[in-house]
Amino acid sequence: MGKLYNEVAGRDLNRLAALSDGIFAFAMTLLVLNIRVPEPLEVHNEGELGHALLHLAPSLLTCVMTFLTLGIFWVGQQTQLSALRSADRDVAWLHIGFMFAVVLTPFSTALLASFITYRMAILIYWANIVLLGLMLCLSSRHAVRSGLRKENAPAHELLQRRIVSAQALYAVAAMLCFVNTWLSIALTFAIQLNYVFAPRISWLYRL
Amino acid sequence: MGKLYNEVAGRDLNRLAALSDGIFAFAMTLLVLNIRVPEPLEVHNEGELGHALLHLAPSLLTCVMTFLTLGIFWVGQQTQLSALRSADRDVAWLHIGFMFAVVLTPFSTALLASFITYRMAILIYWANIVLLGLMLCLSSRHAVRSGLRKENAPAHELLQRRIVSAQALYAVAAMLCFVNTWLSIALTFAIQLNYVFAPRISWLYRL
Amino acid sequence: MGKLYNEVAGRDLNRLAALSDGIFAFAMTLLVLNIRVPEPLEVHNEGELGHALLHLAPSLLTCVMTFLTLGIFWVGQQTQLSALRSADRDVAWLHIGFMFAVVLTPFSTALLASFITYRMAILIYWANIVLLGLMLCLSSRHAVRSGLRKENAPAHELLQRRIVSAQALYAVAAMLCFVNTWLSIALTFAIQLNYVFAPRISWLYRL
Amino acid sequence: MGKLYNEVAGRDLNRLAALSDGIFAFAMTLLVLNIRVPEPLEVHNEGELGHALLHLAPSLLTCVMTFLTLGIFWVGQQTQLSALRSADRDVAWLHIGFMFAVVLTPFSTALLASFITYRMAILIYWANIVLLGLMLCLSSRHAVRSGLRKENAPAHELLQRRIVSAQALYAVAAMLCFVNTWLSIALTFAIQLNYVFAPRISWLYRL
Repeated sequence: MGKLYNEVAGRDLNRLAALSDGIFAFAMTLLVLNIRVPEPLEVHNEGELGHALLHLAPSLLTCVMTFLTLGIFWVGQQTQLSALRSADRDVAWLHIGFMFAVVLTPFSTALLASFITYRMAILIYWANIVLLGLMLCLSSRHAVRSGLRKENAPAHELLQRRIVSAQALYAVAAMLCFVNTWLSIALTFAIQLNYVFAPRISWLYRL
Repeated sequence: MGKLYNEVAGRDLNRLAALSDGIFAFAMTLLVLNIRVPEPLEVHNEGELGHALLHLAPSLLTCVMTFLTLGIFWVGQQTQLSALRSADRDVAWLHIGFMFAVVLTPFSTALLASFITYRMAILIYWANIVLLGLMLCLSSRHAVRSGLRKENAPAHELLQRRIVSAQALYAVAAMLCFVNTWLSIALTFAIQLNYVFAPRISWLYRL
Repeated sequence: MGKLYNEVAGRDLNRLAALSDGIFAFAMTLLVLNIRVPEPLEVHNEGELGHALLHLAPSLLTCVMTFLTLGIFWVGQQTQLSALRSADRDVAWLHIGFMFAVVLTPFSTALLASFITYRMAILIYWANIVLLGLMLCLSSRHAVRSGLRKENAPAHELLQRRIVSAQALYAVAAMLCFVNTWLSIALTFAIQLNYVFAPRISWLYRL
Repeated sequence: MGKLYNEVAGRDLNRLAALSDGIFAFAMTLLVLNIRVPEPLEVHNEGELGHALLHLAPSLLTCVMTFLTLGIFWVGQQTQLSALRSADRDVAWLHIGFMFAVVLTPFSTALLASFITYRMAILIYWANIVLLGLMLCLSSRHAVRSGLRKENAPAHELLQRRIVSAQALYAVAAMLCFVNTWLSIALTFAIQLNYVFAPRISWLYRL
């Protein structure tokens, strides 16, 4: 026997990736369930339908924001996992923690859509983003300390620096909610768009 | 360090395929949630149950239509991805955009089922199909420009031409909604059936 | 260019399997959403909770039945796909049709749970099982005719005979609904249990 | 022909893992749907929102508990499957039974969240954990008896002992519900945290 359970458990990188993809896919699809089709009984003509659809704007906006966030973290997690030679039990659990943060996003997004002018909703949404970054950061660190990375993997600092600078920007945006909640949301959205598109702009690219 | 995050991120084709399959699978399954089981309290005999089930026809019809659309685009995306040697960050993001269009389909389908005689519902449904085609087109183009395609991959023009001719047909169908919404839906459905079955008919096969 | 889209599309067996697994997984999980937690306001003590839980029996029974059915067809589809060398566009579409039947099961199950004494609910549930068997049968035939099977694959007749004998049994069970709906459900359940457990009993094993 | 269906069916370990990952992913994501966003009409200021969110504590607590449980069993199942050379029909069905237990967790969790002071809710929650352990145990045993394990796989007793000791602890925690339901939940939670974190503490590590 000799070996302990904890030394042989959770080593399969492919299954970790598969579970992650399933959870990301489901969370990303659930977001859209927050956008409710208007009640047919309350709509009598094209004009009223247009009006009812306009009321969905906060749901649609927060849905797009979270979809971008999940996309950003999915690319980040994939980049991190592809640098590993193998997983171990601790990597598996740190990523399960990361997935818990992913799974919370449909809730924090729906909360923000329903209470878009409340500071508390913005701070909870922000806390969710912090948790995503934190878990990814911890698992990246653990991989370095435990020697689980491939020899030719890109430098660990690359991902760490990326997470830290993004989190600093999100923190600034969240704090703006004490001035005005819409300002806070606008900056959060701008940061997300930056991480999707801005690589094309040279100085932003270096962030 | 040297390398930048954006040069190492998002390169894993398998995970892109896995995330896509997850999102297609949930979107396709969610469609059926639009078909609601009749209320037991409102049904007293076999005849009333039959009657209540007939009322589900618009939900069932739009569900089948979108299932076919998603099937068509799943085959299309699979054909495109299988022509790639590797992904990069931009391919990943163009496909995340494509998945956003996939994720919107349960909403636009439910909207069409609830407002099947409204032009606005048809135009939104059509916009969703346009977005699907557009994102697939953009990512296909990007793959050519960035040299990410396999050497022996089938010609890029094949997929492009396919998307353009399909989108032209969908546009004609959508415009028919200004004449009659049912006509518009009938033609959209016929186009979808064509892409599933018509390959058996020789001149349609060449479309 | 030369090649046509339909000759290069939909060939990836792994993605077909991945989409199927996603759809099976989601459909199997959705089944359980039909089992609703009792309303806290209507329950005042342990006895009332027990009573409220007993009312969930039809939902639980139909949920187990469909879970078994989906398990049986998942094993069947897996066995079929593992006999193929490659897919083509038609195999892909026949399996997409099969998945449509999978996706309908949470609906037909919820319908049966709500109307467990109605013949129409049983016949629709049965039609769903017929559709599952039919699509699997058609795709198996197509694979033979198109020479897509591996050379050392187990005989095609094995799967065909299995489907035909199972469908004959399900048809008998469905017809019993004209005598008594509970009898019909009991026999359907017995058939499902047979396909899960009976291989241990020698003459049933040969079915 | 010669061969029987039951001898060729269900042998694909990759698809078994893929189905499992899909089901774990959805069950883990569905858990969060139990945490309902407060009704906007009932909240008029930040204080009331904070108050409404506090009422979500039982949902959040049970959600975290089940997420940990599912994480523990996902790591356990992965460790078990990675010790196999191949699957067979019986392994496939034992794991489908295991997945049924996984699929029940969102229900038993929602039941516990709604009736957190009821013994019956705790006993049902515990029965679900017992079912998870039992199916994993049975499939592990079957793999040994059928010679499906890899030669260099870690000792089978490792996983068995792990399951038995965990189940003994859960049983003690469940029985505490006859003293006090909160005590029972507290110990269950402590056991779960132990299996996630305690490996760092040496004598607990050996459990």
